Amino acid sequence: MERKIKVGVIGVGRIGKLHAENLIAHFPNVEVKSVADPFIDNSKAWADNVGIKHTYKDYKEILNDFEIDVVLICSSTDTHADISIEAAKTGKHIFCEKPIDLTVEKIDKALSAVEKAGVKFQVGFNRRFDHNFKKVKEIVKDGRIGDVQILKITSRDPAPPPAEYVKVSGGIFLDMTIHDFDMARYLSGSEVEEVYVTGAVLVDPAIGEAGDIDTAIISLKFENGAIGVIDNSRKAAYGYDQRIEVFGSKGKVLVSNDTDTSAIISTEEGVFSDKPKYFFLERYQGSFREEMKEFFNAIIENKETPVVAKDGLKPVLIGLAAKKSFQEGRPVKIKEIEEEYSSK
Amino acid sequence: MERKIKVGVIGVGRIGKLHAENLIAHFPNVEVKSVADPFIDNSKAWADNVGIKHTYKDYKEILNDFEIDVVLICSSTDTHADISIEAAKTGKHIFCEKPIDLTVEKIDKALSAVEKAGVKFQVGFNRRFDHNFKKVKEIVKDGRIGDVQILKITSRDPAPPPAEYVKVSGGIFLDMTIHDFDMARYLSGSEVEEVYVTGAVLVDPAIGEAGDIDTAIISLKFENGAIGVIDNSRKAAYGYDQRIEVFGSKGKVLVSNDTDTSAIISTEEGVFSDKPKYFFLERYQGSFREEMKEFFNAIIENKETPVVAKDGLKPVLIGLAAKKSFQEGRPVKIKEIEEEYSSK
Amino acid sequence: MERKIKVGVIGVGRIGKLHAENLIAHFPNVEVKSVADPFIDNSKAWADNVGIKHTYKDYKEILNDFEIDVVLICSSTDTHADISIEAAKTGKHIFCEKPIDLTVEKIDKALSAVEKAGVKFQVGFNRRFDHNFKKVKEIVKDGRIGDVQILKITSRDPAPPPAEYVKVSGGIFLDMTIHDFDMARYLSGSEVEEVYVTGAVLVDPAIGEAGDIDTAIISLKFENGAIGVIDNSRKAAYGYDQRIEVFGSKGKVLVSNDTDTSAIISTEEGVFSDKPKYFFLERYQGSFREEMKEFFNAIIENKETPVVAKDGLKPVLIGLAAKKSFQEGRPVKIKEIEEEYSSK
Amino acid sequence: MERKIKVGVIGVGRIGKLHAENLIAHFPNVEVKSVADPFIDNSKAWADNVGIKHTYKDYKEILNDFEIDVVLICSSTDTHADISIEAAKTGKHIFCEKPIDLTVEKIDKALSAVEKAGVKFQVGFNRRFDHNFKKVKEIVKDGRIGDVQILKITSRDPAPPPAEYVKVSGGIFLDMTIHDFDMARYLSGSEVEEVYVTGAVLVDPAIGEAGDIDTAIISLKFENGAIGVIDNSRKAAYGYDQRIEVFGSKGKVLVSNDTDTSAIISTEEGVFSDKPKYFFLERYQGSFREEMKEFFNAIIENKETPVVAKDGLKPVLIGLAAKKSFQEGRPVKIKEIEEEYSSK
Repeated sequence: MERKIKVGVIGVGRIGKLHAENLIAHFPNVEVKSVADPFIDNSKAWADNVGIKHTYKDYKEILNDFEIDVVLICSSTDTHADISIEAAKTGKHIFCEKPIDLTVEKIDKALSAVEKAGVKFQVGFNRRFDHNFKKVKEIVKDGRIGDVQILKITSRDPAPPPAEYVKVSGGIFLDMTIHDFDMARYLSGSEVEEVYVTGAVLVDPAIGEAGDIDTAIISLKFENGAIGVIDNSRKAAYGYDQRIEVFGSKGKVLVSNDTDTSAIISTEEGVFSDKPKYFFLERYQGSFREEMKEFFNAIIENKETPVVAKDGLKPVLIGLAAKKSFQEGRPVKIKEIEEEYSSK
Repeated sequence: MERKIKVGVIGVGRIGKLHAENLIAHFPNVEVKSVADPFIDNSKAWADNVGIKHTYKDYKEILNDFEIDVVLICSSTDTHADISIEAAKTGKHIFCEKPIDLTVEKIDKALSAVEKAGVKFQVGFNRRFDHNFKKVKEIVKDGRIGDVQILKITSRDPAPPPAEYVKVSGGIFLDMTIHDFDMARYLSGSEVEEVYVTGAVLVDPAIGEAGDIDTAIISLKFENGAIGVIDNSRKAAYGYDQRIEVFGSKGKVLVSNDTDTSAIISTEEGVFSDKPKYFFLERYQGSFREEMKEFFNAIIENKETPVVAKDGLKPVLIGLAAKKSFQEGRPVKIKEIEEEYSSK
Repeated sequence: MERKIKVGVIGVGRIGKLHAENLIAHFPNVEVKSVADPFIDNSKAWADNVGIKHTYKDYKEILNDFEIDVVLICSSTDTHADISIEAAKTGKHIFCEKPIDLTVEKIDKALSAVEKAGVKFQVGFNRRFDHNFKKVKEIVKDGRIGDVQILKITSRDPAPPPAEYVKVSGGIFLDMTIHDFDMARYLSGSEVEEVYVTGAVLVDPAIGEAGDIDTAIISLKFENGAIGVIDNSRKAAYGYDQRIEVFGSKGKVLVSNDTDTSAIISTEEGVFSDKPKYFFLERYQGSFREEMKEFFNAIIENKETPVVAKDGLKPVLIGLAAKKSFQEGRPVKIKEIEEEYSSK
Repeated sequence: MERKIKVGVIGVGRIGKLHAENLIAHFPNVEVKSVADPFIDNSKAWADNVGIKHTYKDYKEILNDFEIDVVLICSSTDTHADISIEAAKTGKHIFCEKPIDLTVEKIDKALSAVEKAGVKFQVGFNRRFDHNFKKVKEIVKDGRIGDVQILKITSRDPAPPPAEYVKVSGGIFLDMTIHDFDMARYLSGSEVEEVYVTGAVLVDPAIGEAGDIDTAIISLKFENGAIGVIDNSRKAAYGYDQRIEVFGSKGKVLVSNDTDTSAIISTEEGVFSDKPKYFFLERYQGSFREEMKEFFNAIIENKETPVVAKDGLKPVLIGLAAKKSFQEGRPVKIKEIEEEYSSK
């Protein structure tokens, strides 16, 4: 057997653990050598159980380990950029959870560091690897539905986050809609030019008090002339609602929610079927495995990763434009945000 | 048998004929006594065949017939208001096809005349009587999905109208979206407060040259705090696409397209099912009958019609706001349009 | 206008009334001149309301009316054959509800009389004209699914008939399954060669006490080599269940139940959709109109009716074979039944 | 970490490899210590790659290894019974692929040996662990659809096996339908009392020449009074068709095929969706993992396995009854087969 790729996972909350477990179960060529987390004591039993030998409080232990080839940055958002910069300096390939940062400045710095170091870098926009959305992309690309004219994304969470979280989340557009902005760019094959937000606080007043909204309709104008709309809610009573429709000159393609079973029950009361899979861990289970697969393939075959640095930046710019649109009650061009930052 | 209600149909194009035939086939208490149309010669064989005895070139023949209780105004849009005013003066009950007019002034005049005369008046927003949309209304009203938060309407035609028609149509918002504006008010149970349009010419450049657009996403803000979005296209390759989704605090209800059959064919090539019913005559067939039924019930039982005068005005105001929003690239409040007109 | 075809309806129970109303509403070339029924007093108000002028107790009044061109025989099953024979003698075209009779002898006599008289004759197997089943037929005929190999029919009623009715009904196979036997012949394009019944009394013990069963699986062998299965229940808690699947060498086609609306409601409790249309009057509404249309077309264009005499006989033979199969616990060939009768 | 359960896999064809890989990826408490196969040379690279250390030609090497706690018997059907007997003698727990044998005698012997040894024994009826079918079982058990009255199984393969295989397969009923017989028992909660087969050779004449059939409708009578039907084809042009419907006194539950995506594509040509997942490895992927999980749970918690010895015997008896029914053209009781064997 060839030498395995050695991986260190920085941050082993829910998503860090998930990536580690996927690598252990499905990637015979990859070894998860070590994990680091400020609260590592809580995760030692887990690490032991899945067979990870080294556990650290300080992520620098991983960066200083010359044997480690790859780091997965799954720590809190505010640390992504800094750790990326340090990791790039040590020459390690980087998988970084989204978003890279909530500010354009720090994203720019991180991306420069990565570019300079010449390491592989992939952002955790896992939905690109979802079976349903990949199929949409494929059909759009094949030209089966012609030129894209209207793109529609429905993205609703089953339950709102606590107001405490909302305060540090960067707001709904950088925390939740950012995935949808990535999808919009990915599926349309075009950059977003302008956004307009109609938003409201309808789910939880505490979210409004925290300065955010919980319900939104975001209109999009793409550079290629297409238009689009995203609708978000922080709380869908029936569960996680993730649907996409692309309408083109020759037809449309539509994907809907996955369910646990195909059971349809008919009784005197009516006809019943399954609710959507509960939340992102269930619905996007396969996509997390796929994104790892393509990331390691890019490393092994020394080719571009499927979600490059620019893909980490653009959705943040759109998110900032959306925020401004809502605050000022007018359409905002992405260029306006870019110029604002470049002039700084 | 009691005396039948006697009806005159003014304008026997496609929709006038449809109403007449429905009355003849399904309303034993109603007699279609006469029809009038500037091109009546083209319709004489039809009238003879369905058993209508009197055919006129001039609609005034109908208005002057004291025996006639009810007129259906199915002539060209620019004549709706004037004929409504004249008909009201003769004391006849009025069913008027949508829109009443393309201008607020003429609508106001017509509605005043109707009010003054105390006759029944119903506008032809037939979609309210569609089996699917009625069910949505019912579920919203019952509170099964809680308070309305997001309302989504997809409304796409199978083929664009000729550019000649587009020029006199009043534009996509008064010609096509007007039905969706009515649906939005009807299903949300609230007035629209503000609209914002993202539009494009993607179907036919001739439509653009005629000063109109053919593809649009219209964001809506309702007075009750809900938000909404309508997406329109003048051409869906797969046919007439008419779907509505209402999302509320306790769930959602979604209706999709009707098809001719439930057949699902599975072969080596894939799994195939029916396209939507071709166009509005097929899809809304039942709704045209239902709107007549409720109109004549209102007359017989002397109660309010289900689509009153105000329902004829409001969608036009929203349409005019949408037009302005697109032209000026900003959200426009309905009040702005109202004030504009009241200040004249 | 040409002279209208004059029709007399014999028997104005539920189905006779339905045919009369359809003719009045949708067939401008047809006049329902008179109706006859032993209990005509109960139907006089109805006749008056829909505009039928002549009402009789005795159906002979209709047969003796030289003006009448066509009779619809919608009386009780035991009278179908005799009235058909009498009507054929007067030269009137005949539409006869199914089944022609419960005995082969009387069907044979009726069919001979019809043939001798040279009048049109159509049996009321309305399901052939159902939009879904017609589509299945079309696809089978087109060869899109190749040679038919397996045919499956699910046919379940929403509620069992009273035991009193069961006693005179001829049993489930002649009363209920007879429609499915017709479908089997129609869709496979082949005669049934042999049947085998697995049956049970699971719905209502009174049905068992009346000498009948209420739940059955009927295996079919067709002359062309295909095989098939029908499953019946007298009571489906969720309503009328009418589905058909044809599986062939190149694929399958499947039609399912019609519903009143396409509404899908998602709440915390689950995802809900409509139950099937309640019963045959709702589900097969369109088919009753279509069968009339094709019957009168056959008369007007002097061509063969779409459901000929033989189509009235064969399902009865299959029903008798099914009865014998259940009683004797063995597969029974249709030929065995035929020979039994021809040897009498 | 506790001592891992040590497993030997006997036979590493497609299914043996699948089980080994599932254990390695998802069962941290289990170690696949060794594998044996007469053609082990073909599988050495695979074993090395997934990290299995010991590979043998002779399965006795596994049986003689005192460290091994559990064997998975995935060799050819004719060896299942003998190896089970030998393994039982060494005190190892046994997972045995279906069927245990094609003859009742050898199954009886194997089951006696297992019982005597007191080891755990589970037969590879993986479909019981399929997400869809488990849900059906759950709903039936909960009483949501009342008492089971009709059970319907559709089970069609995407492509027929080679005639060579057919000759040694034991025939369609023991090779293919055996899974459906298991499902019938499992879902109805009752034993099958009688079967009747309507069969045909419609897919491949070579199958007929090999003495088998390729298309069948199998009627079932259950001991609890319910009835059922299975339809089989060796070749569905559109792929693997696996659907089940259970109809009861209070309603029905129906599960249909899984697909790779939920994509619906609408174009001028029609509306298209995914074909079913290709074959059993794709469709039943999850079920193979689940059956291992429940098997090892039974070992760890020292409780009864979910598919016990009797569950290995009964479907073979039903299969033999089905064979006889087809050969003799009559319904055959399971008791008849049992008595035949017990009298030997």
